[in-house]
Amino acid sequence: MKNMIIASTSTVFGSTYLEYLLPTLKTHFKNVKTIVFIPFARPGGITYNAYTAIANKAFATINIAVKGLHEFENKKEALQNAEGIFTGGGNTFELVNQIYKHDILQTLKAVLENGTPYLGTSAGSNICGVNMKNTNDMPIVYPPSFKTLGCIPFNINAHYLDPEEGSTHMGETRETRIKEFHVFNDTPVLGLREGSWLAVKNDEITLKGSHTARLFTKDNAAIELESGVEVVV
Amino acid sequence: MKNMIIASTSTVFGSTYLEYLLPTLKTHFKNVKTIVFIPFARPGGITYNAYTAIANKAFATINIAVKGLHEFENKKEALQNAEGIFTGGGNTFELVNQIYKHDILQTLKAVLENGTPYLGTSAGSNICGVNMKNTNDMPIVYPPSFKTLGCIPFNINAHYLDPEEGSTHMGETRETRIKEFHVFNDTPVLGLREGSWLAVKNDEITLKGSHTARLFTKDNAAIELESGVEVVV
Repeated sequence: MKNMIIASTSTVFGSTYLEYLLPTLKTHFKNVKTIVFIPFARPGGITYNAYTAIANKAFATINIAVKGLHEFENKKEALQNAEGIFTGGGNTFELVNQIYKHDILQTLKAVLENGTPYLGTSAGSNICGVNMKNTNDMPIVYPPSFKTLGCIPFNINAHYLDPEEGSTHMGETRETRIKEFHVFNDTPVLGLREGSWLAVKNDEITLKGSHTARLFTKDNAAIELESGVEVVV
Repeated sequence: MKNMIIASTSTVFGSTYLEYLLPTLKTHFKNVKTIVFIPFARPGGITYNAYTAIANKAFATINIAVKGLHEFENKKEALQNAEGIFTGGGNTFELVNQIYKHDILQTLKAVLENGTPYLGTSAGSNICGVNMKNTNDMPIVYPPSFKTLGCIPFNINAHYLDPEEGSTHMGETRETRIKEFHVFNDTPVLGLREGSWLAVKNDEITLKGSHTARLFTKDNAAIELESGVEVVV
């Protein structure tokens, strides 16, 4: 009985942190007084305390308190007792590295499968997939494994970007990178554009937000999914 | 007595594969009849044979033959006997994965330090640094380590891109990513723009090509290096 929101980004252009999601979060975290925040992805390398303060400021506007997971001595217990959980974005390699370091992958997976309401943004969404092999992040640390939660049966490519028309840059497009992934892997990949998210209720996964999403499966042409449809892979 | 060319990209916009580098390569590989090509990065997931054919076509114009390392049963011996070596671009994770799989990291390092002329482009340049933690590539496979050749005392960020003015995309800029790297690591990073390369002669490293390069060191503001200067970190 999963109850998760898996968002491409925390912030859309021209608005404040989580602003575009707040109406959804108000319902999603109904009756939740305090959320446990996983700050391990450290965007821009900021401290856990500074990052938790940013999450706290956004959730305060819908009357929810935020406590950083780093503040708990027993992190497994903190997750097991959490009314709600939010994993923020940043660097997916460092996030996964810390998840392994604190040995909380299985605990987090168990509580999410048991229905604890969850929000992931960016790196916090990447970890909901089968593995982190479709992150855009730089491999600034070497995690013990790329395996992640597997709460959904595919991978996320957050901040999905369409090929830029007229670009003179010779680096690979996002689509080329995901196609390379499928030379070596079978797992489907959903390119989630900024402003899109997945609502996961039990095993039903629905695309939400203002854009279509691009679904890549091995040996097939990519397809566009309309907002509102169930994502079936 | 190193003798290496470490290039940001194989191809600049509007020209053919290696075209902009051919005059330089003619001198660099003077008296070399056959080059051993390392095709393991497989751009777009193409086969080793197809990739070797692309390299072959470019080098044929300067009368040099190309043989793929995958064609040799004994890869260490092939590297030890090579008159010249070229590692092409593609996916750095898969390149490094195969280098470990074939156990050739130390052999390649030894022959390069012994003076075998080398060309690296993109992923083939990333592996010349201390580690591959500044690649832009997607982690489509999990290599046994991120440690690379360490033929230069810093890391390369190939295809370096300046922040895009007026962008509405919320993903991190290249500079932000490299600054995050320096929260966790001390190794300097050189952002090499497409069209730039390093000429390494023994321990002297000179920036060449049509652009400045951006040098990032921990706890300092990034600086721009002019083409023609020695890179000292």
